[in-house]
Amino acid sequence: MKSVTLAVDAMSGDRGAAVAVSAALAAVTENEALSIILVGIRSELEALLYGADRDSGSAGHPRISIAEAVDVVRMNERPSHALRHKQNASMAVALRLVRDGEAQGCVSAGNTGALMAFGRSIIRMYPGIERPAITKLIPSLRGRCHVLDLGANVDASAENLYQYALMGSLMASAISDLPEPRVALLNVGEEEIKGNEQVRLASHLLAQCDTINYIGYVEGSDLFRDVADVVVCDGFVGNIALKTGEGVAGLLIELLEQAFSRGLYGRFVGWLARPVLGRLLKLMDPARHNGASLLGLQGVVIKSHGNANERALLAAIRQATKEVEMEVPRRINDRLDDLML
Amino acid sequence: MKSVTLAVDAMSGDRGAAVAVSAALAAVTENEALSIILVGIRSELEALLYGADRDSGSAGHPRISIAEAVDVVRMNERPSHALRHKQNASMAVALRLVRDGEAQGCVSAGNTGALMAFGRSIIRMYPGIERPAITKLIPSLRGRCHVLDLGANVDASAENLYQYALMGSLMASAISDLPEPRVALLNVGEEEIKGNEQVRLASHLLAQCDTINYIGYVEGSDLFRDVADVVVCDGFVGNIALKTGEGVAGLLIELLEQAFSRGLYGRFVGWLARPVLGRLLKLMDPARHNGASLLGLQGVVIKSHGNANERALLAAIRQATKEVEMEVPRRINDRLDDLML
Repeated sequence: MKSVTLAVDAMSGDRGAAVAVSAALAAVTENEALSIILVGIRSELEALLYGADRDSGSAGHPRISIAEAVDVVRMNERPSHALRHKQNASMAVALRLVRDGEAQGCVSAGNTGALMAFGRSIIRMYPGIERPAITKLIPSLRGRCHVLDLGANVDASAENLYQYALMGSLMASAISDLPEPRVALLNVGEEEIKGNEQVRLASHLLAQCDTINYIGYVEGSDLFRDVADVVVCDGFVGNIALKTGEGVAGLLIELLEQAFSRGLYGRFVGWLARPVLGRLLKLMDPARHNGASLLGLQGVVIKSHGNANERALLAAIRQATKEVEMEVPRRINDRLDDLML
Repeated sequence: MKSVTLAVDAMSGDRGAAVAVSAALAAVTENEALSIILVGIRSELEALLYGADRDSGSAGHPRISIAEAVDVVRMNERPSHALRHKQNASMAVALRLVRDGEAQGCVSAGNTGALMAFGRSIIRMYPGIERPAITKLIPSLRGRCHVLDLGANVDASAENLYQYALMGSLMASAISDLPEPRVALLNVGEEEIKGNEQVRLASHLLAQCDTINYIGYVEGSDLFRDVADVVVCDGFVGNIALKTGEGVAGLLIELLEQAFSRGLYGRFVGWLARPVLGRLLKLMDPARHNGASLLGLQGVVIKSHGNANERALLAAIRQATKEVEMEVPRRINDRLDDLML
């Protein structure tokens, strides 16, 4: 197994460093080829890492080290402000570890806009790509679907959408091992005449590109129907689609739990049903799907939910590990040149 | 009870006139104050309405009549083409019945764009409103939420969004009997700095309007959390949010059904669980929520899903009946003047 080193921004999440430290410990325990550099305030991280054992001479974990970063970017801080004043923030230090080759990828649960801004200023973009996009694998009944952009940029030109489609297609090839991923544009209808100008123009560009398996428009409901492997949209639409989907899933899980906690009969049936519903509950478990990729940077950068718990942050670390193992940035970089307009 | 007459476009849906005729029969049977004018090809409708009974002298139903319309707008027909060549299409005739006061509202399962275009050309808009919006009540755990625009227009200026907010607020007052509906803009985050330019400018306009209870931004996941009574967005975003939500709900229902049909044990638990899951299944049943309002026209116009079955079309007819009973257009018209910019 290939050895992988990740930088984990331990300070930026809503739940503080404790979650990052336990997720890191869990990650190196389950994966012997993985080393983690925790980035943050050394004294705080050491206290969490060594705990009460410190006095007894324990040295933490041999595959976990610490890189000091004294600042933290706040969740609602303007990215431009962070760029100007927080060059020593944990997320910036983590990204520089990737740039300098000390780590092959990094994970942060911090401010998305700031992570994007630091990402672009610290790690190079792929040549010809104007903006990064955020992407994630959306689970469905059969297969899964890479959706992008999920909120890196609130608008996108036709060229941006085209570039997202290229990157998404190469990403799906690299990580899901698909030879010819089906690429679609998210639209309000499947007919040629539907949609806004950017989407229609992007469709035109994609239809002319023979190295991409462009299948046309799909609608919101198609995201879960294994119709496409890659679905492209602007970040405003993608963010709202993702969160609406999560909202419906959350509502349904809550309704299920209510139904199975009401009355003796309900609780009894709920107890009987738990093993039967295993697959559904697993598919709907948001912690399992935590970890979105900042696609466009020449390095693995994974954004975790801000309020991720240990299990969710572990999922994001696994995602980063997998992208490093599959050499996603190199594979995208190698093929992108041939595909640019 | 107030008597209500609706024009039902019987020809434009994917499933043909049979569904419309049975839904109309069901509707007048359950509501004694309701009369329906079926709009379409007379011979076809009569055959469906009288069925085998015709020879026996049955006269159909005393509160169902027929208005002849020889043309039908196809589902993928360009609205501009329909406007030019299909003035005698069933949806146009149904709208004219509303304009001329023969019906107080109409229901169509046809081409949304064409219905919008005919709606705007046949029925007057509210003064000061530039474009109609499509709106629907989205169910949630507690309360419900009017979302608009769900796809009438693929883009919207800040002024359009502001006008949607006004209409949505008045609609929620009129139909859900809320004195001060909470109005929100759909955005990619709750912070002031988030979103695209139109949304931020619309927020500015709404914050200055004291007759609207504007509460700021909400995210996609908030649609189901009883955070707002009215949520405003452009039609591209709204359409994709709605369909994504429907897609997730459909996926979950399919997973539930799979779980409860696998093996003897699964089927047994599923049988036990059915009464427990009643509320969930009811809330998720798309047929119950069929029927979106074309808001902005001075008349009740309800768009049904194209592939609505009898039960779903009945729900759309109920929605139209309710809007007529609550005098939604008059109540919006009366108050809109005071609120315009």
